Amino acid sequence: MTGSHNIHDAADSSPAPSTTDRTDSGPGSEAVIDDFVAVIPAGGVGSRLWPLSQPHRPKFLLDLLGTGTTLIQDTVTRLAPLAAQTIVVTGQRHADAVAAQVPQVPAANLVAEPTPRDSMAAIALAAAIIQLRHGDRIMGSFAADHVIGEPHEFRAAVRTAVVAARTGKVVTIGINPTEASSAFGYIAQGDELPDASGAFAVREFTEKPDPQTAATMLASGGYVWNAGMFVVSTAVLLEHLERLQPGIYAGVTEIAAAWDSDDRQATLERVWPTLTKIAIDHAIAEPVAAAGGVAVVPGAFDWHDVGDFDSLVGLLTPDADGVTRIGRTAVVGTFGSQGVVAVGGTKVLAVVGLDDVVIVESDEALLVLSRAAAQQVKDAATAGL
Amino acid sequence: MTGSHNIHDAADSSPAPSTTDRTDSGPGSEAVIDDFVAVIPAGGVGSRLWPLSQPHRPKFLLDLLGTGTTLIQDTVTRLAPLAAQTIVVTGQRHADAVAAQVPQVPAANLVAEPTPRDSMAAIALAAAIIQLRHGDRIMGSFAADHVIGEPHEFRAAVRTAVVAARTGKVVTIGINPTEASSAFGYIAQGDELPDASGAFAVREFTEKPDPQTAATMLASGGYVWNAGMFVVSTAVLLEHLERLQPGIYAGVTEIAAAWDSDDRQATLERVWPTLTKIAIDHAIAEPVAAAGGVAVVPGAFDWHDVGDFDSLVGLLTPDADGVTRIGRTAVVGTFGSQGVVAVGGTKVLAVVGLDDVVIVESDEALLVLSRAAAQQVKDAATAGL
Repeated sequence: MTGSHNIHDAADSSPAPSTTDRTDSGPGSEAVIDDFVAVIPAGGVGSRLWPLSQPHRPKFLLDLLGTGTTLIQDTVTRLAPLAAQTIVVTGQRHADAVAAQVPQVPAANLVAEPTPRDSMAAIALAAAIIQLRHGDRIMGSFAADHVIGEPHEFRAAVRTAVVAARTGKVVTIGINPTEASSAFGYIAQGDELPDASGAFAVREFTEKPDPQTAATMLASGGYVWNAGMFVVSTAVLLEHLERLQPGIYAGVTEIAAAWDSDDRQATLERVWPTLTKIAIDHAIAEPVAAAGGVAVVPGAFDWHDVGDFDSLVGLLTPDADGVTRIGRTAVVGTFGSQGVVAVGGTKVLAVVGLDDVVIVESDEALLVLSRAAAQQVKDAATAGL
Repeated sequence: MTGSHNIHDAADSSPAPSTTDRTDSGPGSEAVIDDFVAVIPAGGVGSRLWPLSQPHRPKFLLDLLGTGTTLIQDTVTRLAPLAAQTIVVTGQRHADAVAAQVPQVPAANLVAEPTPRDSMAAIALAAAIIQLRHGDRIMGSFAADHVIGEPHEFRAAVRTAVVAARTGKVVTIGINPTEASSAFGYIAQGDELPDASGAFAVREFTEKPDPQTAATMLASGGYVWNAGMFVVSTAVLLEHLERLQPGIYAGVTEIAAAWDSDDRQATLERVWPTLTKIAIDHAIAEPVAAAGGVAVVPGAFDWHDVGDFDSLVGLLTPDADGVTRIGRTAVVGTFGSQGVVAVGGTKVLAVVGLDDVVIVESDEALLVLSRAAAQQVKDAATAGL
């Protein structure tokens, strides 16, 4: 472990928490880890959730479960008990909406990308800014648009991952697979690490498999889903980056140097478009895993990426009349129809003679969907209707 | 044949057409029949076409085929080449809308019922008003919300029916059945009448049969659909009515006597609610047929009552993209979906993974329907959503 646990920075003027014991001392703790920075990449439209999600209104800005809070709000809230600071990396287009939704994230911690350049550039820029502002910190990167059922269990896994990250590992949190899904990558889990209880070696990362391969992996055991959660010291991440993606390393270092100055925007606009578009999985996780540098902490919590309406509906409970409603208060009547899902909309809705249909109404568009075809919504979203 | 062919009435001040030959002399003629009055009962919501049709916006007021004209406009236009006058009987609630849609019908010929009391009262009142204003005329009653493919063939059948009606018969126009439908009543056709070429004796009226009975009748031949079209002299109709439904006869006679006076509204409001609710089929057609007094003219034209969205769609041609559009200009995209029907609506619509669905959007409501369940729309319409 390197760097100070005391936090003094312009971005967060609140005093560092005065914890007397090691704040990441146990998975049952709920104390802030004073050198832990949560990084939340908030990108991705979520096009299979069209027309709820749209380029101007991406999934992470939506109250998808009808709880009264959006996915990015839930993500920030979920990490708040752990993180001394939170940095959100999002598109310039969405910066104002993000700032409005999570006002507890200070403006200096809101990193606005001019254009999307995939997850490696986003996470690397956050790491470089943290490193320059504070020296080495443990950072944990978590997507802004996932749904997690048990936040306490989630934080316990992160706490374990932080302990493992202090040993110099790139640490991912693996999700216990509940089905032979071909929608996620898989992580082959190895032996438990001797110096971080609850973390395991990673043998390899597997790209999204075909259904048969997924079934084989599920049956053989020892595989967890890759949910894109990475916990790593900023120094370790930047070292890997410098070696594996020197162009990105140089670029984000230059941008970070200008970040807290008047040159931020000019530098960002000049350098950002030159950064290689690559996912952190390919840029770092896979090559470092091959060299034995990645660990995995199995998460004992419900996790959902809520990729499409089918998976969204699976998270919700129908009302007494059998209709599942999301953000809908207007009347729904069903006649010879079961498993109807009504999302949004202000007019009376009647569904007649159709089972397992999802009707989604946004201000702009109306989607009528067979739940079984939920993946195909992407075609509608990208058709430029 | 009784009464004068010359028309002198307050309601229509245009001079009677000065035809030199018998205007109903042949089925190929398109001359006005100068003693023929078209009566158009405009009632019935058309609840299986909800939410297009609503109690305040019944089917006959709709441009259901997207032709730019409504069903009642089409009905009046279809009869105009035949009829010296046209009387529309509708609900008070719809009188203004009817007047606006068919301005060619003079105000004095717009009969507004305080409440619906079924077809016998409506047609009898029209007959009594005609008889009192003009003496005996041949009247033809035709619903305001049917679709007829070949208006020239339709008028040829009416012309034949008028000839038969001059012999004192109650004449109906039968529709050649194209399927074993259980949605219509059937008429058993007898021998051709000797004194009216093209008209046949009616053996009996059959109520809407079950599908098996319908199939048997279709196979045996000699049956036509009862489309509720009646052509009869007003004197003959009122004589039957006096004998078979003396209460209705007395009531409509009293109302008709007050019709073209200041007492119209008071008399209507006092007497109308006392009239027996009965269809003309039961009140007159069936008993008179049993006594040999009904004739039928088989119609050689396409006829549709457009009872539900399935039958409506059957009348329309899909666009090049396979989507059938009715009153819809906004974009429709289909993905893994065939036989999509889009009715109304102003938002982009995408249909994903569903075949043969009908999506109807009105100002008030949204209907998502399996075409096969079109009859069940009535349940939605009457559910008070």
